[in-house]
Parts: sequence; C-alpha cells; structure tokens
Amino acid sequence: MMNRALELIQDKKFAEARAAVKEMNPVDIAALFEELEPEQTVMLFRLLPKETAAEAFAYMTPEVQEQVLSALTDVEVQTVLDSQFMDDTVDMLEEMPANVVKRVLRLTDSETRGMLNRLLNYADGSAGSIMTTEYVDLKQDMTVRQAFDHIRRTAGEMETINTCYVTDRNRILEGVVTVRELLMAEENTLLGDVMEKEPLSVSTDESDEEVAQLFSRYDLLALPVVDRENRLVGIITIDDAVDVLQDANTEDFEKMAAMAPSENTYLKTSAFTHARKRVVWLLVLMISGVITGNIISHYEDAFAAIPLLVSFIPMLMDTGGNCGSQSATLVIRGMALDEIRPRDFFRVVFKEFKVSILVGAVLAPVNILWIWLRYQNFWIALTVGLSTLVTICVSKLMGCILPMAAKRCHLDPAIMASPLITTIVDACSIFVFFNMALLILKV
Amino acid sequence: MMNRALELIQDKKFAEARAAVKEMNPVDIAALFEELEPEQTVMLFRLLPKETAAEAFAYMTPEVQEQVLSALTDVEVQTVLDSQFMDDTVDMLEEMPANVVKRVLRLTDSETRGMLNRLLNYADGSAGSIMTTEYVDLKQDMTVRQAFDHIRRTAGEMETINTCYVTDRNRILEGVVTVRELLMAEENTLLGDVMEKEPLSVSTDESDEEVAQLFSRYDLLALPVVDRENRLVGIITIDDAVDVLQDANTEDFEKMAAMAPSENTYLKTSAFTHARKRVVWLLVLMISGVITGNIISHYEDAFAAIPLLVSFIPMLMDTGGNCGSQSATLVIRGMALDEIRPRDFFRVVFKEFKVSILVGAVLAPVNILWIWLRYQNFWIALTVGLSTLVTICVSKLMGCILPMAAKRCHLDPAIMASPLITTIVDACSIFVFFNMALLILKV
Repeated sequence: MMNRALELIQDKKFAEARAAVKEMNPVDIAALFEELEPEQTVMLFRLLPKETAAEAFAYMTPEVQEQVLSALTDVEVQTVLDSQFMDDTVDMLEEMPANVVKRVLRLTDSETRGMLNRLLNYADGSAGSIMTTEYVDLKQDMTVRQAFDHIRRTAGEMETINTCYVTDRNRILEGVVTVRELLMAEENTLLGDVMEKEPLSVSTDESDEEVAQLFSRYDLLALPVVDRENRLVGIITIDDAVDVLQDANTEDFEKMAAMAPSENTYLKTSAFTHARKRVVWLLVLMISGVITGNIISHYEDAFAAIPLLVSFIPMLMDTGGNCGSQSATLVIRGMALDEIRPRDFFRVVFKEFKVSILVGAVLAPVNILWIWLRYQNFWIALTVGLSTLVTICVSKLMGCILPMAAKRCHLDPAIMASPLITTIVDACSIFVFFNMALLILKV
Repeated sequence: MMNRALELIQDKKFAEARAAVKEMNPVDIAALFEELEPEQTVMLFRLLPKETAAEAFAYMTPEVQEQVLSALTDVEVQTVLDSQFMDDTVDMLEEMPANVVKRVLRLTDSETRGMLNRLLNYADGSAGSIMTTEYVDLKQDMTVRQAFDHIRRTAGEMETINTCYVTDRNRILEGVVTVRELLMAEENTLLGDVMEKEPLSVSTDESDEEVAQLFSRYDLLALPVVDRENRLVGIITIDDAVDVLQDANTEDFEKMAAMAPSENTYLKTSAFTHARKRVVWLLVLMISGVITGNIISHYEDAFAAIPLLVSFIPMLMDTGGNCGSQSATLVIRGMALDEIRPRDFFRVVFKEFKVSILVGAVLAPVNILWIWLRYQNFWIALTVGLSTLVTICVSKLMGCILPMAAKRCHLDPAIMASPLITTIVDACSIFVFFNMALLILKV
C-alpha cells in the first residue's frame, strides 16, 4: 500500500496518489511522508483532505513537521493546529526551533496560547508534560441525559470520551464516570449517584514513568492529573502511557549497556552523538580494566613459573561477568516492574547465593575435569575449579547487591548493570585466582 | 491502606477489615491476598461483597486463585466464573492443575464451556490466546438508536463497549464503530454509514508480540481478531497488549543477559529453576572462554619476554566487550521497535564504523599516553593503543552485524547480545593484541 502510493507520487500521478493515500491509516501516511523529498512533502500534504492531513501530521517526526509548517500559509497552519489535540501540539512545539514556536503561538487564539504555554512549562518527564487538557468535564448535579447532551456537543474536540470527569465549581476533581456506566444508568439519575468517588489521580509533578506503571498495574485507559489543590488540570491517556513505558524500557536497555540514553531513534542519531553517548562510560570502564591489570602484574612471578595460568584468565573473567550480569539484569528488571521491593533485600541475596552454589556445582567440576584430563595436573585443575566457584558466588552477590544498594541511595539501579559489575567482578576473580594459585600451587 | 487492612485481618477485626478492604482497588485487594495465610485467604474472600471478590479474583496470582477455588462451594465458584471475562478465565485455567480445570469446566454452561475449550486451544503466544469473546456485535442495517439499545442491554457482560464491531450474518467482520462516533451521529443513521470499513484486524495465529506492536504503533484501544474466513472470533484489548509488551521486554532483557526466559516473577521462581535457566549459557560461554585462553597460550613466548603485556588483557577484553554490547543493544532494541529494518543493514554498519573511529580516537590516545608516561616505553604504548582501536572497530561491527544476521536467519536477535558477542570479541582482541606485539615489539 505504502510502496504503491510512493510510486504514484514519484511518477507524478497525483490524482491516483491522493486516492491511494486517503485510504491509509494516518500513522502509515506519516511514515510515507518520511520517505518523500521536501518539495514532495508539502505537495502531498496539500493534496490530502484537510482532516486526513491534520491527523497524519500528529504522527510525523519533528523534521517533517517543521518542513510542512514552514511551507504552509498561516491559514493552513491554523487548520492543522485546530484539529490537533493539545498534547500533540505541545510535543511538537518542544522539538521546534524558536521561530516556528513563535509563529505557531501567534497563530493560536489567546486561550489556547495560555494553555500551551502552561503545558510547555511542565518539566520534561513529569505527568504534566504528557497530559492533555481536552477532557469531558461534567458536574455532579447533571442528569445522565444532560451529561450525554454535553458529551455529544463537545465530543469532537476531546481526546477521549470513554472516561468523563466530574468537578465542582472550583474545578476540584470529585469523581469519574465511564461512558459505559452512563449508558447503563437511567436517564434521570444524577451523576453524583453513578460516578466513582475519590478516583485514582496523580499530581502534575509525578514522574511519567511512575504514571505509566500505574496504567499497567491498574489496567487504566486514562488518568486524571490534579494540581496541589486537587483541581483537575488535565488527563493522561493510555497511548501516551504506552509510549512512556516503551521509552523507559529503551532507556534501561541503554543504561544497562553503559550508554547515556538517546532522545532519538538509532538511525536519526548522528555518529558523533552516538560516540558522545558511549565514550564516557567506555573511558571509565577502561580505567577499571587498568586496575584489574595492575592486580595481575602483582603476580608476575606466579605466571612466570606457570605460564599456563594466564590462559585461564579470559574464562574466569567471562564467567564472572556473565554471572554478574544475569543477576543484575533480573534484579534491575524486577525492581523496575515493582516485583522486587526494598524489604526483599535478604530474600534476594539468599536466593542468589543458593543459585551460585547450584551453578558452581555444575561449572566448577566441569573445569576441574577437563583441565585435569588435558594438562594431567590435578592441582592446577583444582585451583581453577575453586576459583570458578568463588568467582560465581562473588559475581552473583555483587550482581544483586549493587543494583539494590543503588536504589536505596536513590540512584538509578540500571547504571549498576553488567558493564560496571563486570569490571568489579574481573578484579575480584583475578585476585581470587592468583591467591588460590599461591596457596595451592605454592608458586 | 493495605497495611491497615492486613493488620485488621490479623487482629481478627473482621467487620472493620471488610469495610477497609471494600474501598480498595481490586488490584490492591488481590495484592493483599498474597500476604495472607491460606485459611485467611478464603475467609477474607467470603467476607467481601461478591462483586468485589470476583473482581479482585481476576488479578490474583494462580497460587492464590487455586487456594480460593479449592475452598469454595460449587455455587460460589459459579458466581466467580460468571462475573469474570472470558480471557481472564482462560488465563487462569492455563495455570491450574487438571482437576481444577475439570471442576471449573463442569460448573460452566455448555456454551461457555465450548468457548473456553476453543480459547484454551490457541497456541501460547498467539493472538487467539489473549483475545476475549465478549465484544459488542452490531449489524450494518441497525440504526444508531437500535445500536444504543443493544449496547445498553449487553454492556454489563462486555470487556469493552468503547469500540463496537459490525458483522454480517455469517459473522464476517465488516466494520468498527466507536461509541464516540455513535454519540455524534443522528439517531436514525444506519451503522453502515457511520462505521469505519475494512478495519485493521489480525488473525488468531498472529504472534502476540506483533499484535502488541500494532497497538503501540497505531494507538489502538482494541483490535478485532478474525479467522481465515475473516469471521470475527474475538477482540484483544489494550490492557492485555500492554502485558504482552512488558513480558516481551522482560524476555529480551533476560535473553540479552544470557538466560532462558522465565515464566514467573523473580521471587516466585525457585533457586533450582533460576540455576537451570542460567547454567546452559554459562557453560557455553565458559567453553568459548577456554578458546580465548588457548589463543593466549600460543603467545607464551611473548609474555615470557614482556610479562607486562599480560596486564593489558583485562582492559582490552573489557573495552571490546563493552563496545560490542553497546552496539548490540542499540541494534536489537531498534529492531524490536521496528526502527531498524533489514534494508538498513549497510547504513547501520557504516554508522557503527564511524562511531568506532570516533570512540577509538579518544580511547586509543588515552591509552598510548598513560602507558608511555608510566612505563616509559613508547612501543608498548603504541601496541596497546593500536590494539584498542582495532578491538573497538571489530567489536562494534560484530555487535551490529551479528544481531541483524540473526534476524535475517529468523533467529531471535536478542540471543546475539552482549555475552555471546563479548566472548567472540575477546578472542579477536587477544589475537590482534599479541600479533600487534609480535609485529611492533618483535618479541
């Protein structure tokens, strides 16, 4: 579908292109815009029915949005803005250069402008920054019939009507009622009698990730956002919560691989930015690698006497690193999903200790056996085997303790992930190994 | 709230406990049940209003559900089943032992039993396995008023009424219509004129992760599921899609840390199961560590001549491993989010190459400088510096190529993550390092 539309545009068969694109989903139309040359972008935008174009606009990347905006007339920009939801306009403005923001704000009426300015002021990553102000606002003393009249009149401008909000004359949130509950109630019932009182709500400065977790935990479709006086200022809808959830997961993946989180998709980020986001941790970890190296050089006599010892270093380091990242990943993920809480500290540590013993009981004998068979030296085999066991225990314990400790210090547990743990565990395993060698092999 | 309720129950103040629990969210009530002793569980369940108890039941863990079910009378079980949505009952039955499943199926009427059996037959991980059959089913020739009458009559049993489905007499899916569109339409309009035709739908055997991605991409609240003849057989709602998304992310985290995915939460999984899920990869990776060790032992002469060389091994191995996991993580995540596609192969490889050069341009000189300054030997410093640069390039390229190659071979890219890449990169970096030493230092 998309490829055909693209061909038609490139062949300049505009009437046919228009017909093909019109049938597409706005999300796919937005993706199609990504593929076009700048001059084609504006042309196609004008070809489309106004409503379709405006709907697709909300899903475009900031680059394409900027292209389109700068080529449209003031009247056209106004049409686009009118048909957009407030939260989408805010998302867009956050990415635009100052001159575009200025123009957009100039083209909106003063009420909308005030609202946009307020929304733009909420800190990035707060509930306020992802909420919208287009919700159905009802009163307790309305009847169900009056509520429906109100909904019918305003539905076109609302982000959702599936959940409606009941406020008093000071905009204090009093309750929520779903359209389903309204449909099932008698026409003359008062909203005060059908609404759910004391609904779950969040404040504007709540973190957006916490909000997203609430959606996931309570199976919500929308959540009211209130200010300090419990006045309703906006709502957050599930589509935005899902985006936050996905972004939070991506960020955790990045942090756990020792990178600063990126704001953009992989391909849209320049090589220079990629390098900048990765090089700091690499430098830090390289220096920790040097420390491990220093430990090794203390034992030059040992591996001068038995050079074979050196060849076990990679295996021990890898095993330690892998064990540590297994534990760290499970604990970090468990805490992110709220399945592991601070009070579970000792349960987790004890469980990881048991797991270490079980895993060590498999890996250590395997090592002892093959080294013994291959090098015909039981004592070297025993040295490596016991070092494997100790390395596994140390790395699994580090892997679970460090992220939980980070959380307790209000740091992000994800930075305590594999790479950092690996370097710490490396130093430990080398230390254990050579001391074991000194002890058992008397080198 | 939860702690107070728990205290009241433990103090046997049941009337007060009932009052406190009644006000809680069903999700929190279910969490409260987790904290109780088995005999308290059933007691509290009976204390609660039937509807509240049944609602909380859907959110309980299988262990608690089984406890409750086995203690309830047949009539009580029927009440619970009647008030549950079909997809929740199916989720529950999938976790219950055979005798409980038998009892539950015996207690449902034959129509429900047929439906449950059909739903239970869909493969785990398919769209069919997460769908529900309780959707609003309308016809094209109904007027909007008739549609509302139908919705009012059946709303109580439906998982959602926000989106309704229009089918023909053979149950072929013809369109969807939202309750908002119905509210905004004239009462006498025919549904055929307001519904959206050819709606997005998935087939029962579509993978649930693909389905969840559709929800995220198109901002959906519900999605119809059809069989091969395009007959509507069920719908999937956003809450289940979010669960799938979260599970898929957890699975990726686990695979990327070299573990087999777990079915249960961290604390609910026994130490033995944890060990089993981790030991296989650890063994495989340990053996690859042995290979790297073998490479090292080929260069015994080199480090016999210059023992200092050994102390750079951890730093090189760590840097290579970290570079590789950075690239692998970004590429795997990018593919999971559909931001990186097969056709982007060369763009990604080229970008990673540029990033390697940039990162190497920082790390290599740092290494050369401090080693030169500290050991007063420029040639050793140069050897390590150049090896760092080559290691970074090799590991970044491996890190992006291997996951994309896995995807092309229809393997899960996540298994090509950090640990596997680390061990491959280890061998490469050791090989490069010692050959560089042979070349430059002539050892």
